[in-house]
Amino acid sequence: MSRLDAQLAFLGEADRLKSVLRATSLHDRSRRENSAEHSWHVMLHALVLAEHAARPVDVSRVMTMLLLHDLVEIDAGDAPIHGGHDPAEQEAKEQAAADRLFGLLPVDQRDAMRFIWEEFEAAETDDAIFAKSIDRVQPVLSNLATDGGTWPEYNVTPEQLETRVGVKVARGAPAVWSGLRSRIDAWFSGRASLLHY
Amino acid sequence: MSRLDAQLAFLGEADRLKSVLRATSLHDRSRRENSAEHSWHVMLHALVLAEHAARPVDVSRVMTMLLLHDLVEIDAGDAPIHGGHDPAEQEAKEQAAADRLFGLLPVDQRDAMRFIWEEFEAAETDDAIFAKSIDRVQPVLSNLATDGGTWPEYNVTPEQLETRVGVKVARGAPAVWSGLRSRIDAWFSGRASLLHY
Ligand SMILES: [Ca+2]
Repeated sequence: MSRLDAQLAFLGEADRLKSVLRATSLHDRSRRENSAEHSWHVMLHALVLAEHAARPVDVSRVMTMLLLHDLVEIDAGDAPIHGGHDPAEQEAKEQAAADRLFGLLPVDQRDAMRFIWEEFEAAETDDAIFAKSIDRVQPVLSNLATDGGTWPEYNVTPEQLETRVGVKVARGAPAVWSGLRSRIDAWFSGRASLLHY
Repeated sequence: MSRLDAQLAFLGEADRLKSVLRATSLHDRSRRENSAEHSWHVMLHALVLAEHAARPVDVSRVMTMLLLHDLVEIDAGDAPIHGGHDPAEQEAKEQAAADRLFGLLPVDQRDAMRFIWEEFEAAETDDAIFAKSIDRVQPVLSNLATDGGTWPEYNVTPEQLETRVGVKVARGAPAVWSGLRSRIDAWFSGRASLLHY
């Protein structure tokens, strides 16, 4: 098999990410979002919000991380943050998925892409911390745009949002989290006042 | 309005690209593809196929072009390559769309993103030539994966594919076009032999 054959086989398999559905909806609520279009949208967030990174980042590495970050969901599925899944089991599934999917590529590309995906997952470098933070910003904005989106469904409280999402967003992009935090607080207090009538 | 407010307004508006449908289908033929997931897929093609560029390219600039390249379709719609639209009218619509959409951003970001989108559209620099070429590779692969996809519907001949697609793909990525060309020829000759029975 030529390099091009292997590359085209990988790219064809990647098409399946368009059929992995996430918990969040489009802003117009017409349907649930898939992981491929989510990945595109998150990359756009990273480009536009890079100036708010806690520490200087290489935007092109951040974008490459986000381009690849959800590919493993083709085999492992999406594990919603408020869904209560087993993290060890999910991690094992994702490692097996990375073996299979990146393994379709020529060896040098397999290793380079696996390396940057592992860096993202480890969330230790400045680039990965910012990428992980932005990956959590996009669904918050989707929930805010759709009257709370999945929050009522999963009975999410502002305190849970702070622990599950806020801490990680603030670590990579503190100014973005304070902007989101005030929008989140406004949404929850609007809801609380409705519930009292 | 703060910078963050303007940036979040732009990112929210960008969500609508997920509802712009293209002529091509997913590889499993379950539905038509939208321009947001197409943009993600094209960026993945650019990353993986960069070694085949006709001249050396800056992959991170190419990815930024492809991240932004279809945003104008939110207002202007997608103009399918085999669909026969008026290019001048489409171009005027896209310029107006770029004014409005990039105009949601803070001025410095508006200008930077407009600049790189214009560079892509002009297809003169090495980065833009490669980006344009890869943007045409992804739908060919989709058509090949779906038994010709939109080709029979638009009565496309191999000669039209060569003129409308091949010349531009070969300009930016000649080795990719020869790989596709042999797959295309095989598909058309398989079809011709079927039609003779
Ligand atoms: Ca395109």
